[in-house]
Parts: sequence; structure tokens; C-alpha cells
Amino acid sequence: MRVLIAGMDGYLGWALAQYLTARGHEVGGADAYYRRQWVAEMKSQSATPIFDMPERLKAFKEKWGIMPYFKEGDLTKWDFIKQLFEEFKPEAIVHFGQCPSAPYSMIDVMHANWVQTNNMTSTINMIYAMRDITPNAHMVKLGTMGEYGTPNLDIPEGYFEIEYRGRKERLAFPRQAGSWYHWSKVHDTNNMAFACRLWGLRATDIMQGVVYGTRIDEMGDDERLLTRLDFDECFGTAINRYCCQAVIGEALTPFGAGHQKRGFLPLRDSMQCLTIAIENPAQESEARVFNQFEEVYDVTGLANKVQKVGREFGLDVVVRNIENPRKEMEEHYYNPDHKHLLDLGYKPTHDMESELKIVFTDLIKYRKRIEAVKDVLIPQIRWDGTKRKSKYL
Amino acid sequence: MRVLIAGMDGYLGWALAQYLTARGHEVGGADAYYRRQWVAEMKSQSATPIFDMPERLKAFKEKWGIMPYFKEGDLTKWDFIKQLFEEFKPEAIVHFGQCPSAPYSMIDVMHANWVQTNNMTSTINMIYAMRDITPNAHMVKLGTMGEYGTPNLDIPEGYFEIEYRGRKERLAFPRQAGSWYHWSKVHDTNNMAFACRLWGLRATDIMQGVVYGTRIDEMGDDERLLTRLDFDECFGTAINRYCCQAVIGEALTPFGAGHQKRGFLPLRDSMQCLTIAIENPAQESEARVFNQFEEVYDVTGLANKVQKVGREFGLDVVVRNIENPRKEMEEHYYNPDHKHLLDLGYKPTHDMESELKIVFTDLIKYRKRIEAVKDVLIPQIRWDGTKRKSKYL
Repeated sequence: MRVLIAGMDGYLGWALAQYLTARGHEVGGADAYYRRQWVAEMKSQSATPIFDMPERLKAFKEKWGIMPYFKEGDLTKWDFIKQLFEEFKPEAIVHFGQCPSAPYSMIDVMHANWVQTNNMTSTINMIYAMRDITPNAHMVKLGTMGEYGTPNLDIPEGYFEIEYRGRKERLAFPRQAGSWYHWSKVHDTNNMAFACRLWGLRATDIMQGVVYGTRIDEMGDDERLLTRLDFDECFGTAINRYCCQAVIGEALTPFGAGHQKRGFLPLRDSMQCLTIAIENPAQESEARVFNQFEEVYDVTGLANKVQKVGREFGLDVVVRNIENPRKEMEEHYYNPDHKHLLDLGYKPTHDMESELKIVFTDLIKYRKRIEAVKDVLIPQIRWDGTKRKSKYL
Repeated sequence: MRVLIAGMDGYLGWALAQYLTARGHEVGGADAYYRRQWVAEMKSQSATPIFDMPERLKAFKEKWGIMPYFKEGDLTKWDFIKQLFEEFKPEAIVHFGQCPSAPYSMIDVMHANWVQTNNMTSTINMIYAMRDITPNAHMVKLGTMGEYGTPNLDIPEGYFEIEYRGRKERLAFPRQAGSWYHWSKVHDTNNMAFACRLWGLRATDIMQGVVYGTRIDEMGDDERLLTRLDFDECFGTAINRYCCQAVIGEALTPFGAGHQKRGFLPLRDSMQCLTIAIENPAQESEARVFNQFEEVYDVTGLANKVQKVGREFGLDVVVRNIENPRKEMEEHYYNPDHKHLLDLGYKPTHDMESELKIVFTDLIKYRKRIEAVKDVLIPQIRWDGTKRKSKYL
């Protein structure tokens, strides 16, 4: 299938390009390299070394014998998107081309507006490009489990059947996001579902859990094929950040009481799930929602797992909770459904410890790169609008 | 109370400035005059003559003895909003400063993006200005009943208590908007509610029905104090458009089968309700929702009412349904709650016919202004993305 990856230079995008190519799909991509800029703005860098795109593509060609279609440009520019769709004529689009950071969106009013505008404009542009250029293409849009927040109810996959005052209807499950970024994804979900209903488009909206892992097997030994791994407060996910802390001898730092529960999955499972979504497209007019995660843990439980594996690597790993810079519930009910992907054949990797061993093996090699900017591991951006480093509790 | 009206040059804004001043409130305003530009873009004009703001303010001063604080500028610019809040220090903000048109947002990808970005950025800017400059101020934000769409359920006022798989929670009622514009208002509602929860702000989110009417009594006989009345396909509301059609001898044109039900209220009631909201502010952290309309009619029933009153004025009024340029349900259940404002003392004007007589008296005077651009009365902007005049059915 011809798959356009918007945001191909990112953590998921670069991995997916390889995962899909290995499975015989024709991959194309676009990126404006904003992720590189944002991480530089955080005064951080990827733990893994990141080559520039021409170099990456060269390595890609050496390994897979194929030079993927790639275009540098900004997805918020209609002319760029239009050209992209006209040239590549995607059968599926995977939309990673957004700013994926809650703290980044909470920095100040400029960042709040930028994240919402950037994320939503890119999707509206793609909606129009699908309508006008590739009306049968299938959009796989990356959302986040964070769209739902932590309601005191089971969380269905996107929609639920409700009875209210004696009448019944199937409606979107109400979202309760916790940052401007998370809300940008909710708005996007609403816009996309509207476009599917209105114009018969096809979409799969992925409510993804927190992803961890440094690699997929397809990357092999060529460093240029590795994907980025961020650990700063804005672009690092919880477990990846813990692993980086462990590797350089810093305490793992769950936020607050540390009983926030989230769904998690390794990078290889994210790739597997996305591929299942791509290979089993939504129907015309359908905006289906997949909750994409493997298991639910609380963030302290995870820190303990990272600690255990770190110790097996001879590292002196401690866990020290820090002030929570966010405003979020630290004790809550959490029971989201996640059946759709399993029904389509998703086989979860159940062995988190084996995955963490791979992560440690990779990161130990790049210890110096983490140490060089280790200040970024402690969060400063606070949901109350101030900026100061969280203290240990 | 010191009330800042964002969008003071518009249909509601200019009327509210007078209504509040007559009741002893101190009014300030801001506007970028975009409404004038949009209506010019539609090749249309207000049925009532609209003087420029300095002239309007002069008349205002003559009548009320007060020159209101007013600043020309764009609400999407943070520096402008910041200055506005620092100078005027509002106790209440009424946010009309958005693009209020579904068809305008459906013209093409540029308009879709512009309406969403413009509307949402203005609100996020005001949220930050409230947080940083006037944290106790109360935001009265204009939304629309169109945010809810037409679900097969009763529509509560913003939130509902639901039971799902044996657990209970109070959540936002799921919205089902029908245009990019309506979705911009939903996104805005979500953003505002998040800010209230996060930063203790106070907001009343008005889900307003379709407003009709040419005046409020406070405007008296000075033409410069009249508010605008648009009748083009983008900025005219249903009854106002019907009245303009009647006055120039054109058929009234309900869309499609004409059984779409909506809530309606006269301009004077909109003013009464908004004032009640302002004078009874929301609590800290509260984002309450008021469904603001008087009675539910279908659009054909309304056309028949306008026809009846038109005939009393000796006009030869016919009703001819036209192709519906929108995609919307033309037969549906509709039963929205509207108790909150009644509980706070709203006394509805129940006599639509008397109101329509005032409208006809005003509009007959301006018949030539409507005739001059009467082409704009038949819609061209279609929800399927094409542009062609609707035919009579």
C-alpha cells in the first residue's frame, strides 16, 4: 500500500517508515524538522544520535534498496500539502506531523496558541487534500489516551451507547483533556469525525498510550537507522526518561504521589498496531477510534520496573518522587477498553523487562549524550503558569 | 460593573453596549471591524445603515453622556489583548469577537482554517489575560445551540449526569456540530472549561439560539445607534433574512424540507439574558453553560409567521423552499433544556408577531439597501464543497 507518513523524521515516523517498508509497503514522507527545533529550544538532544534526513535516506536506500519519496515542508501550508498529495497519491496517510507535548503547550500563551493552531491546521489541510485529491485514502491519525483524561467511568473506544431520560443514542465519549496539547488532539478528533460524516472520508483515530523503547528489530546495526529518543521534560515520555536517568545515575522521578495510571506499550507494538490499522482501513464515512496500549500501570510501578532492570545492568538506581508540575489526579479510577486492535490480530509484547534490557543496552552506549544535557530531566514548566524546577518530595 | 465587549461593532455587541449602559454598567469595547470586511467579501451590506465607530461613539456620547472606552484591534494578537485588559481592567468580558458564520467557514480550506484559528486564538488570549491580569473577572462567551447538533436525546445545559456500566459521572454533553464554524465554538467551549478548572477562572458559556430583530428600545430614533442587520447567506440569520426577502417581494426560502427545528429569541431577549449572566457571575472555577433561546420552531413555521405579518403590511409574501446547501438532518428530535436563565429571572418576550412588526417597520424604510444587493439572499456555498446557487424545490 502507498503510505504517506506526515512527520517521518520523528520518533514514531522514522521507525514506521522502516517497519512498513520491511512489510512491502511503499512509504513516502514529509517533515518540517520542527521536532529537532523544539528539542533544541529545550536545550536538549536525542539520546540516540540523529543524522540529517539526506543521510537517513541514504542508509534507508542501502538497507532496503528503495529511496522513499520525501518532501521537506510545513503541513500547515495548504500548497505544500496539496503538492504532497498530488505527487504521492497516498492510499493511507499516517498523521504524526504535530507537536506532541503537553508541557510545551503549557509554557505560555504563545506556545498554547501555536500548538493548537499548528496541530489543527495540519489536519484540516489533510482533510481537504483527502477530499479533493485522494477521496478513498484512509487517514490514520495519531491521538492520545490523554484525550479522555481520567473520568470516574470505564473508557470505551471513542464512542458509547447511552441512555438519557429514556432515549438512546451512540455518541462520542466526552473527553477531559489536561493540557492545551491534549485538547488540540481532542479538537482534531472532532474535526476529523465531522469530515468523515460530511464527506465520506475514512479515518482511524489512534488513542495511543505512552510509548517506550529505543528501537525495532528492523533498524539493525546501522546507527543512521536508529530513531530519536528524547528525555527532556517536553518531548521525553515517562519510561524513556526513567531509563535515561538510570543510565546516568540520577534518581527516577515519578511526579507527585506517583499513582497516576496510564496505558503503555513498547515502540514495536505501536508499529504493529499502526500497521494493523493501515492494512485494515476504515469504511467510507467511518471515523473509528482505537485505544492503543498494552497494559495499565501507575508511574511508580513503572519506575520500580526500570529500577529492577537497571540494577541487573549493575546500575545504582533509586526512585525519588518529585513535585508534580502538572495539575492532574494522582489517585483515580482507570479502566479503558482496548479490544479493537486485539480483534484485528494485535499480539502484545507482554515482556516489559526484555524490552527494557534492549533500551538499557542502547542507552548505555549513549550515556555521554544524556549526561551532556542532564539538566533537562527535571521539569520546570508548571501547569500553574510559573517556571521553576520541581523539588524532590 | 465594568464590562468589556469584544466585538462591540457587531450585531449583538453594539446593541449590548447600549443595553448595559442604560442599566448603569460601565462599558468598554474592542473590534477589528472584520464583520464589515466579511460582509463586503459577500458583496453585501447591512440592511440598516452602519456608521463608522467614531460616529457611533459620538452618537452614544450624545445619548448617554458617556464616551465608552474603545480600542480598535485584533483579538488574536496577544499584545493587543494584554493592553486592553491592563487599561480597562474588566470585571466582566463578553466575548463576541469571533467569526459567527457556518457557511463562511465552509467556503474552502482557507476559510475553514481561518475561522477555527481566529476564533480559538482570541479565546485563548483572553483566557491568559484573565489569568494574569483580571483573575476574578467573569467571561460571558458567546457559543451557539448549534454546538449540540441534533442528537436523538434531550439536550441538557452543557453537562449531564450519566450512568455507564454501573458507574456515574457528570460530564460534558457530547457535541455534534455541523460546520467548521460550529466546531470552532465547541473547541472553544472545551478550552474555556479547561481553563476554569485549571486556573479557577469564571465563565458562562452561552449556547445561543437564532437571534432576530432590528432593534432594542434603547436605540431610540438616532440612526447612528441602530445595530447592523445582515441578510447575506453567511451573516444573515434565518428570520432576519426572511423579513428582508418579504420586504423586497422575494419568496421566503426555507432550506430543504424545512423541518429543521431550532431555538429562537428576539434581540431584546438576547440582551436581557446576557445581562442576567453578567449580573450573576459564575463562581470561581465554574464553566457553566446556559442554553439561551425562547421557543423552538421549525424553519417553515417561522417563514409562515413572517409571511403572515408581511401580509399585514400589505406585502405579497410567498414561501418557496429551496435546495438545502447544508448537510443537516431535516427531520429530527429536538428538545433542549433552557431553565438556567429562567431560574435567574429571564422573562421571555412571547409575542413574536409584535417583534416582527417592528422589524418590518424598520426594514421597509431600508428596502432600497436590501434591493441593491438582493442576489446575496440565495445561498451558493454548499456543504459538499461546491459553489452554486440553490434552486427552488
